[in-house]
Amino acid sequence: MRPCVIAGYGAYLPGRTVSFGDQVRHRVEPGVSQLDMLEAAAREALDAAGIGADQVDCIIGAVAAGVQPLPCTAALLQERLDPRGETAAFDVNSTCTSFITALDVASRYIADGEYGTVLIVSGDVGTRFLNPAQTESAELFSDAAAAVVLTASEDPERGVIASLQQTWASYAHATEVRGGLSGVPPQAYSEATATDYLFDMDGKAALMGMVRVLPRFFRRFFDKAGIEIGDLDLVVPHQASRALGLAMRRVGIPAGLFVDDVDRLGNMVSASVPYVLVEQLRAGRIGAGDTVLLCGTAAGMTANALAIRL
Amino acid sequence: MRPCVIAGYGAYLPGRTVSFGDQVRHRVEPGVSQLDMLEAAAREALDAAGIGADQVDCIIGAVAAGVQPLPCTAALLQERLDPRGETAAFDVNSTCTSFITALDVASRYIADGEYGTVLIVSGDVGTRFLNPAQTESAELFSDAAAAVVLTASEDPERGVIASLQQTWASYAHATEVRGGLSGVPPQAYSEATATDYLFDMDGKAALMGMVRVLPRFFRRFFDKAGIEIGDLDLVVPHQASRALGLAMRRVGIPAGLFVDDVDRLGNMVSASVPYVLVEQLRAGRIGAGDTVLLCGTAAGMTANALAIRL
Repeated sequence: MRPCVIAGYGAYLPGRTVSFGDQVRHRVEPGVSQLDMLEAAAREALDAAGIGADQVDCIIGAVAAGVQPLPCTAALLQERLDPRGETAAFDVNSTCTSFITALDVASRYIADGEYGTVLIVSGDVGTRFLNPAQTESAELFSDAAAAVVLTASEDPERGVIASLQQTWASYAHATEVRGGLSGVPPQAYSEATATDYLFDMDGKAALMGMVRVLPRFFRRFFDKAGIEIGDLDLVVPHQASRALGLAMRRVGIPAGLFVDDVDRLGNMVSASVPYVLVEQLRAGRIGAGDTVLLCGTAAGMTANALAIRL
Repeated sequence: MRPCVIAGYGAYLPGRTVSFGDQVRHRVEPGVSQLDMLEAAAREALDAAGIGADQVDCIIGAVAAGVQPLPCTAALLQERLDPRGETAAFDVNSTCTSFITALDVASRYIADGEYGTVLIVSGDVGTRFLNPAQTESAELFSDAAAAVVLTASEDPERGVIASLQQTWASYAHATEVRGGLSGVPPQAYSEATATDYLFDMDGKAALMGMVRVLPRFFRRFFDKAGIEIGDLDLVVPHQASRALGLAMRRVGIPAGLFVDDVDRLGNMVSASVPYVLVEQLRAGRIGAGDTVLLCGTAAGMTANALAIRL
């Protein structure tokens, strides 16, 4: 157990929506940037924790695709929150599960006494990178941001129980955005190469990979954590796709124990896990003392699981 | 003290050079990618440690600007090193000091027993982002990569003694690359906006900032670490610019105690600190039992310091 507690949380959801049949997706408003969303979520989390940005020891930017190649997203966010700030700021990235990795990292900094308060902020504008010709991904993603303030816990029974992360190289290209950085630089952008700069998702490969690796991954996780599915009060999975229910069944997590809001929220990339977590906290479905499993698969292909006692 | 040891190290330096007066800079060969450099450095580090990629518990990509927006660089590197691999893989980013942050993160995962072996890989192709009209940055950067294998240490006297990281928001735009991700997307690329996708460095602002904040930062660091400059066997600073000597003097680190190879190596962005570290290890200037300070300033503006007993 790595003692820590979520002292505040916040989220930003664009009001603008589009629908594909019964599937609702959220689209960032014109003029609203990724950084605007991150800032809004972070401010709400700080307010809820009752602290100012200058009382944070470390800001972790946990987004999939950042704001700029340089500097890191956490530094740009610090500038928004506290223009004269001088706290630590760095990014952690495991694409769609960046929030889980960041929470795992932050819990260690808190457990060993390095930091007392860490602000973790996630959020992407996935819909800016949609390829309309690829229905599967174009009709899947939503924009959003979410943030939590993590602090030390005086109660040793509250905190991160265990975590597990693995990446399977054989699915590295099942979900990707190739263009924008060194591999396919912006300088090579043209009408002919335009799709290289957009989401490219082989949903079938990703699903096959997930189905293949997840059962063993979750067995490893539960063995390591020393807990069972029956010990969980709620499972907050990444809202990866409409196959979420299938994936959960495959690993033995019963309907009702996990949140499936894909129809209402879509895949919010890095914001997905923390956004759903914030909604469940707000609704009072989970609270102090509850054991919650955050989990998901991400481009990489990465699987991530972290159990926290709130 | 967080016990850990560098069990292997490797580096890649492009043989191609250009010179500006007495300043030599390294340029990646045509056809060699950022990922090629990272792979070469990582393979050398794994070989030196006498292990295969499948024996690594976690790969941390610690680069400034990555290979692709999605997935993270560590996942793409894992694919190269171990196409059927299934180890953990994520990125940590504090721009030019990403390696120090990653080492700090990795040392905590090792100290608390989560991982036994972590591969940290840094490297950028800064020269692909040069603006020839901005001499100051265009004549400064070099391409390179470096990697270390960090393992648990049975000797409790070897490992990370202490670390400190801070970011000052007021200098967030002193060094940046604005274009390529969500802020200024590749889709907006044109001749008119081309410089937005290149390094933009206000060297004077960065230097002024550094001179202002570093003395207090280093005092904080030494107080926290419980060591003094006299306890150090070597200082390995980020080779940020030709003002390196000035910065070191400003914080009281005497000539001879720090490595200044800016004339020969240039600013290698994220590879700078680990590349110089690897060179000094190779040359036998430092070895087991020596206390080494890794430090540097980065876009953000971030300062980073970490003392390790080898």
